[in-house]
Amino acid sequence: MTLSATEVNKLKHAPKIEGVLPAILERWSPRAFADRDVSPADLKKVFEAARWAPSSYNEQPWRFLVGVRGSTTFDKIGSALMPFNQAWALNAPVLILGVAKTKFSHNDTANNYAIFDLGAASSFITLQAAALGLATHQMAGFDKAKAREVFSIPDLYEFGSTMALGYQGEPSTLANEQLITGEVAPRTRKPVSELVLSAWDQPAKLF
Amino acid sequence: MTLSATEVNKLKHAPKIEGVLPAILERWSPRAFADRDVSPADLKKVFEAARWAPSSYNEQPWRFLVGVRGSTTFDKIGSALMPFNQAWALNAPVLILGVAKTKFSHNDTANNYAIFDLGAASSFITLQAAALGLATHQMAGFDKAKAREVFSIPDLYEFGSTMALGYQGEPSTLANEQLITGEVAPRTRKPVSELVLSAWDQPAKLF
Repeated sequence: MTLSATEVNKLKHAPKIEGVLPAILERWSPRAFADRDVSPADLKKVFEAARWAPSSYNEQPWRFLVGVRGSTTFDKIGSALMPFNQAWALNAPVLILGVAKTKFSHNDTANNYAIFDLGAASSFITLQAAALGLATHQMAGFDKAKAREVFSIPDLYEFGSTMALGYQGEPSTLANEQLITGEVAPRTRKPVSELVLSAWDQPAKLF
Repeated sequence: MTLSATEVNKLKHAPKIEGVLPAILERWSPRAFADRDVSPADLKKVFEAARWAPSSYNEQPWRFLVGVRGSTTFDKIGSALMPFNQAWALNAPVLILGVAKTKFSHNDTANNYAIFDLGAASSFITLQAAALGLATHQMAGFDKAKAREVFSIPDLYEFGSTMALGYQGEPSTLANEQLITGEVAPRTRKPVSELVLSAWDQPAKLF
């Protein structure tokens, strides 16, 4: 017997901190997705969130290829995933592929913040999804050459993540033991003292 | 007479959408900061939020150099800013410089998602700040060689943004007309149909 989705969430949710956004503390990246569609209204909210992310010169370099299960777009994104991701991600009702335009539109020079800003917009998707009771799981494990080919993506655009979006499912529905083990392992992070510094390798004593 | 901070917020806040996180819709990037410190408790919450961002292999590549006004760290970050950013950002009570480790710790290979993930963590900072009533403004305009030098940042780490954090101030306190003009201009975004695609350059008809 493995843990249920409800039991797993207790392990995955960060300890509650008064004033910290619940979407940030409760968001995590399951691999088990329920056989349940995401409503068009919720999907729209998720991308409205991405749309309002900040970007260098307000370039908004992000573009998202988005497919729901059964669509050509979904199948194309799925075909580019590595087999170890296909083993679970194809069960999600929505797949997303994020790319970023690497030149500024206003002057055609290199936008060195394109991927940084795509990371921001993609993370807004994850938080807005969490706020709607949806789960997301981003993947780096996909064949970028294949993704470029199947969608004829111009070289001007670089890849961010692929993402599975949907409702969290029961861990027991995953295809193999390895996936189940990952699904029920606690979510961990480095202590904040390793991340917030006043000088190089020196923790900031600010709080 | 220029607009007040309260009046400007009405222009900058995205239209309210039921179910979309207010922090996402209301976050924007002012340049006017009030002469008011951020409490240690709030600063901690902001970095707790960053800490729980997702990252490839849970590497958590982000590190943040953080200085409060009057500190050596603040002065060092400020010294690396371009003059057009120094003209306003030095009035913020907190300056942050984000960098990312570009190799995975578990196997010392290249982490091609380091900057993407730093973008995510940095954007979590902006949202958590907004949720606490704080304002943030990220800047690409800083001298990276100088920032590397003043903090002796190893080459293994690459730069994300610098960020000003604090309480929004009155636009009229900005140093010149150009800054005031930007401060009171409406916040704009591309329509979601340009961002969400089912094939290349083809809007998705999903919602």
